[in-house]
Amino acid sequence: MSIQTQPSSRKTSSPQSWEKQLLATIKKAKAASFAAAQLSPVMKNKILLHAACLMEKRIPFLLRENKKDLVRAERMGLSAAMMDRLCLTPERILKMAEGVRAVAALKDPIGKVMERRKRPNGLRISKVSVPIGVILIIYESRPNVTVECAALCLKSGNAVLLRGGKEAFHSNRALAGVFAASLSKHGIPSECTSFIKITDRSAVDFMLQRDQDIQLVIPRGGESLIRKVVEVSRIPVIKHYQGICHVYIDASADLKKAVAIARNAKMQRTGVCNAMETLLVHQRIASRFLPSFGEVMREEGCELRGDGLTRKYLPWAKKAKPEDYGFEFLDKILAVKVVHDLESAVSHIQRFGSGHTDAIVTKNNKAARYFVDRVDSSSVMVNASTRFADGFEYGLGAEIGISTDKIHARGPMGLEGLTSYKYVVEGSGQVRS
Amino acid sequence: MSIQTQPSSRKTSSPQSWEKQLLATIKKAKAASFAAAQLSPVMKNKILLHAACLMEKRIPFLLRENKKDLVRAERMGLSAAMMDRLCLTPERILKMAEGVRAVAALKDPIGKVMERRKRPNGLRISKVSVPIGVILIIYESRPNVTVECAALCLKSGNAVLLRGGKEAFHSNRALAGVFAASLSKHGIPSECTSFIKITDRSAVDFMLQRDQDIQLVIPRGGESLIRKVVEVSRIPVIKHYQGICHVYIDASADLKKAVAIARNAKMQRTGVCNAMETLLVHQRIASRFLPSFGEVMREEGCELRGDGLTRKYLPWAKKAKPEDYGFEFLDKILAVKVVHDLESAVSHIQRFGSGHTDAIVTKNNKAARYFVDRVDSSSVMVNASTRFADGFEYGLGAEIGISTDKIHARGPMGLEGLTSYKYVVEGSGQVRS
Repeated sequence: MSIQTQPSSRKTSSPQSWEKQLLATIKKAKAASFAAAQLSPVMKNKILLHAACLMEKRIPFLLRENKKDLVRAERMGLSAAMMDRLCLTPERILKMAEGVRAVAALKDPIGKVMERRKRPNGLRISKVSVPIGVILIIYESRPNVTVECAALCLKSGNAVLLRGGKEAFHSNRALAGVFAASLSKHGIPSECTSFIKITDRSAVDFMLQRDQDIQLVIPRGGESLIRKVVEVSRIPVIKHYQGICHVYIDASADLKKAVAIARNAKMQRTGVCNAMETLLVHQRIASRFLPSFGEVMREEGCELRGDGLTRKYLPWAKKAKPEDYGFEFLDKILAVKVVHDLESAVSHIQRFGSGHTDAIVTKNNKAARYFVDRVDSSSVMVNASTRFADGFEYGLGAEIGISTDKIHARGPMGLEGLTSYKYVVEGSGQVRS
Repeated sequence: MSIQTQPSSRKTSSPQSWEKQLLATIKKAKAASFAAAQLSPVMKNKILLHAACLMEKRIPFLLRENKKDLVRAERMGLSAAMMDRLCLTPERILKMAEGVRAVAALKDPIGKVMERRKRPNGLRISKVSVPIGVILIIYESRPNVTVECAALCLKSGNAVLLRGGKEAFHSNRALAGVFAASLSKHGIPSECTSFIKITDRSAVDFMLQRDQDIQLVIPRGGESLIRKVVEVSRIPVIKHYQGICHVYIDASADLKKAVAIARNAKMQRTGVCNAMETLLVHQRIASRFLPSFGEVMREEGCELRGDGLTRKYLPWAKKAKPEDYGFEFLDKILAVKVVHDLESAVSHIQRFGSGHTDAIVTKNNKAARYFVDRVDSSSVMVNASTRFADGFEYGLGAEIGISTDKIHARGPMGLEGLTSYKYVVEGSGQVRS
């Protein structure tokens, strides 16, 4: 099968020798990370802006390389949606270059004094933001991830190891090469942006054991990819598995807003992690809300799967199976449940939610407060669509991913999530007694 | 052997049934974590202060339980140092109770609005500190860890699973019981502080797979324990493996301060992670610094292991083997090396350091800046002893551990490290277009 051999054709050597080669790549990235950490904001922006220019200049080359992936993908029978994700066009490349310029325009996140205190013994303690070091990104077929991650890691002074999917091998290599070229031109080690050329599957496992050299792993892709990474990794992983987002329509909700928010949360884009998957409706408002909401969803071609009470008001809805609650449809399908009260809605979310994003629609401030305090999700919305859970919408300026973890970064993760800190302690000869 | 049977004697049931029991404990802790997260600052402090009182009242009981551990430890031939760590006295218990009161007196870390912004579409985004959830602490023989961790987790609104060493089983159970009793008395689920009674070794592995229910693991103990936890865990782990701390005496150092700092960093307490393990000396100051420093260390009974140049000035020093550099002696032994310049010192630390704490002694601000920028350790000291790397010394008020990781918490980790955050988004019906 060409899946195994095509990009692997460059792996003419024995397994042992790719390990050596990969280890060398990792070690070089580590060495480069020291240089990346010392880059001035001005230099980082020069490199980014030059990369954006190069990307535009190299459009014909990038399209040629992309073509190789497309030809192979077609032979392999990839779905139209997958082909579309993979495909580069001049417009898409220009947009990526614009994205790189936008990252350059963000505030530099490194060297910020986050706290400063003077101790009774005269020690001056400051907590200063620093890069994390070497970040490994493991991703699937979208070539734009290469560009976004390369730009964000560079801006935050980190070295990055890019391990993209085989399907996009040539496209990713060519895009990463743009950053390497810009780094070299400015006299900075090109290994600050390292593309992993070894496509052997066990290469990922090998890298995930190197916790001495790699400080953070961010897997971007489907749940099975992420679970595998977490299982194998000795390196801290930041991730989200699923977005089981709920919208709860409270008894006191504004009906018009409730319909608009629920519709937007489900339908504005169905295949994304911040789309609603289950709608909860307070029993006291069900008879007024459900018929008009149902009408809208029927027009939109969305399948509803409801419990008994839901189907009382929407007889055309399918009967929900127990497994429909807490399920990530990522499609024009919605589970609906009529709940007894606010408390039941919160319990339902505590039980079935994935800690991503959940919303309440209500005019009652007390109900909103109760919901916000008790729903333990990375984003909790009051009278707004779950679709707003996004780094750009929150004004972070960039997003490297969304985390449903509770340590380090939670929710939409921008440049700040790519930093660590160090304590700098300045004394005048103090010793501890 | 009694090691296996004594506390395991309470495990009369089959492996399958301890799994069930342990799973039930974990699930109860998860349920309790929702209650813990809702506790008001006043209630948390009431519980802590009552626990401190109870601890004092129960001194005779705590000593009796501790005695059981001590008798067993003696039978097993534990070292005097281990026996001392294990041993409770009325004074030590009073000190622990004081520690709990000190935690109560700290500022409540939950519900703090860390950022607030209003978006052009009218959405108000706030980033609010919240507890992490369920925290698993895996530790070795010191019973005071039980008290410190129980107090800090409660103060930060987290539920805690305490998995202590077998040697301290009865002491730990009794101390954890104090918190459970105080929780119950205040009508709060006692499972907020859960002591793991199952001492079977595979119980730890079982817990480390439960990433649905446990959000964070903090192993406290020797390096081998920590490595094992990292290898098995699917749950994020915060840890430090080693403290290979360096002191670098720059050419321009104040000689008297240099001797005092180096002596303090090595000798004030040798068995701790922030003690110096390697001393680096600029060649231009070696002839003046080393003889007087050597004299002091000889008086203190510290063995020096030096390179050729070191031994030129200190002929009585042993010859350092390559493996002495980057080694954690935790003892009255110090590796010494004369380096060519500041740059070589930094390279040495980059190569052999463990990212814990490293210090420079210098009167030259430029040298200090160079060192601070390039040494990538959780604490970087200028003209101060490495022994100051400590949550209390930094004014954090408490310390649950020191992290040499670069994500989430780095360096001395206090209450803030036990929190996460959520985004609260307040709208008036906004939908995404």
